[in-house]
Amino acid sequence: MASAYKPEEARVPPALPLPAPPVTKFKIALCQLSVTPDKERNIAHSRKAIEDAAARGAQLVLLPEIWNGPYSNDSFPVYAEDIDAGGDASPSTAMLSEVAQRLKITIVGGSIVERSGDRLYNTSCVFGTNGKLLAKHRKMQLFDIDIPGKITFTESKTLTAGQTPTVVDTEVGRIGIGICYDINFEEIAMIYGAKGAHLICYPGAFNMTTGPLHWELLQRARATDNQLYVATCSPARDAGAGYVAWGHSTLVGPVSGYVFLAL
Amino acid sequence: MASAYKPEEARVPPALPLPAPPVTKFKIALCQLSVTPDKERNIAHSRKAIEDAAARGAQLVLLPEIWNGPYSNDSFPVYAEDIDAGGDASPSTAMLSEVAQRLKITIVGGSIVERSGDRLYNTSCVFGTNGKLLAKHRKMQLFDIDIPGKITFTESKTLTAGQTPTVVDTEVGRIGIGICYDINFEEIAMIYGAKGAHLICYPGAFNMTTGPLHWELLQRARATDNQLYVATCSPARDAGAGYVAWGHSTLVGPVSGYVFLAL
Repeated sequence: MASAYKPEEARVPPALPLPAPPVTKFKIALCQLSVTPDKERNIAHSRKAIEDAAARGAQLVLLPEIWNGPYSNDSFPVYAEDIDAGGDASPSTAMLSEVAQRLKITIVGGSIVERSGDRLYNTSCVFGTNGKLLAKHRKMQLFDIDIPGKITFTESKTLTAGQTPTVVDTEVGRIGIGICYDINFEEIAMIYGAKGAHLICYPGAFNMTTGPLHWELLQRARATDNQLYVATCSPARDAGAGYVAWGHSTLVGPVSGYVFLAL
Repeated sequence: MASAYKPEEARVPPALPLPAPPVTKFKIALCQLSVTPDKERNIAHSRKAIEDAAARGAQLVLLPEIWNGPYSNDSFPVYAEDIDAGGDASPSTAMLSEVAQRLKITIVGGSIVERSGDRLYNTSCVFGTNGKLLAKHRKMQLFDIDIPGKITFTESKTLTAGQTPTVVDTEVGRIGIGICYDINFEEIAMIYGAKGAHLICYPGAFNMTTGPLHWELLQRARATDNQLYVATCSPARDAGAGYVAWGHSTLVGPVSGYVFLAL
């Protein structure tokens, strides 16, 4: 990523000490994974995609929202994992940790449903090059939407909202994390800008209604308004799924243009 | 303007008591005026455009930024008017007041350079249907830009920045006012959203560099993020001018799409 922009000037004064700017450009991979009801297959498929990305030089890999099972309230409890318990209780994040350490890359692990006590969260885990869990972001803005005849979904039926924004220092810079509908709330991105983030990663699964309406607009607005990079990663579109993701995983830069767009 | 959106839900709690929603749709005119060095001609031309708009049913007329003379630091002091003194000291706003009262319309009078004591401001005046000055917005974010070889301008050489956002209740609803570069600062629009504005009017003169980069993006982002209408009005493009305006006066709605775009 080129760095002609000056994150230290995005908001004055910054709320946190700013990190040193990234010393070099790096490659980011947006793995727009196909997602099936077969969790083992999804994990193997994701591992393979991350390995392929690393083999092509990616130092940061971003996965989609809810990549280990279907996006539905019926599925959320079934595919949920206890991330804090780890190991067999969370095979999806155990894989991410193993592969991050083995390949010495940073992974923003999209999101999976997290079981914590009797609650479920839509949670993104960030792993460092040593395989350690650097941060865990719980989706703050649950996706409760009702556009009759187009898209109706109520995440709050099964999920609990996270309470805090998440900024994490990695080997490729300071990264803010949001999940899907979090991107609709400019305040979250402003906080990340104020805290000196170089990049905001939004795993997301916009749909065939909200995708064409706002997916591109919101990414470009967040990047331009806060003078940082924005990366999004969606599941691949599957017209046969109960919830059809928009795809269009994208990287946008702080001066408005696309860096990369997957269809 | 259709009003399926709910401004009262845009930010909770609102900072001000909310106005009653507009009872009916209304027509807005964006007068993308050509601007010349001849001030008398500019005033006459503007009056004619407003009359034409009103004759076609416009109840709200929006004019461009700096419509009574050229956009340049050399011209600003020459074309400046003492708005508070009024009458002969401010022929541009005297015309707006007269025509608003005569035609019983609301006018967001673009902007002119205001002389106040020994200071100059880039100022927008809003006139009600009785011809009274309802509000005066002084551009808060002066346009100091330097993109070498593309666009260099330093408004702060001659102008002083305004200190306060401006929200005004009119016969066609609650309107927030920004001038040109004010639109780049999302905080101003968020304040207007929080105060229950139905519409933000931005007279603006983006140029051939910043226009294609951000003009459309920022309008759509402000409208979508704050769930209100955004109207912009630029001078007509004049390839022979010292500062070439982008044009593209636009009205956008809260759900992303264009309502109207002038090329």
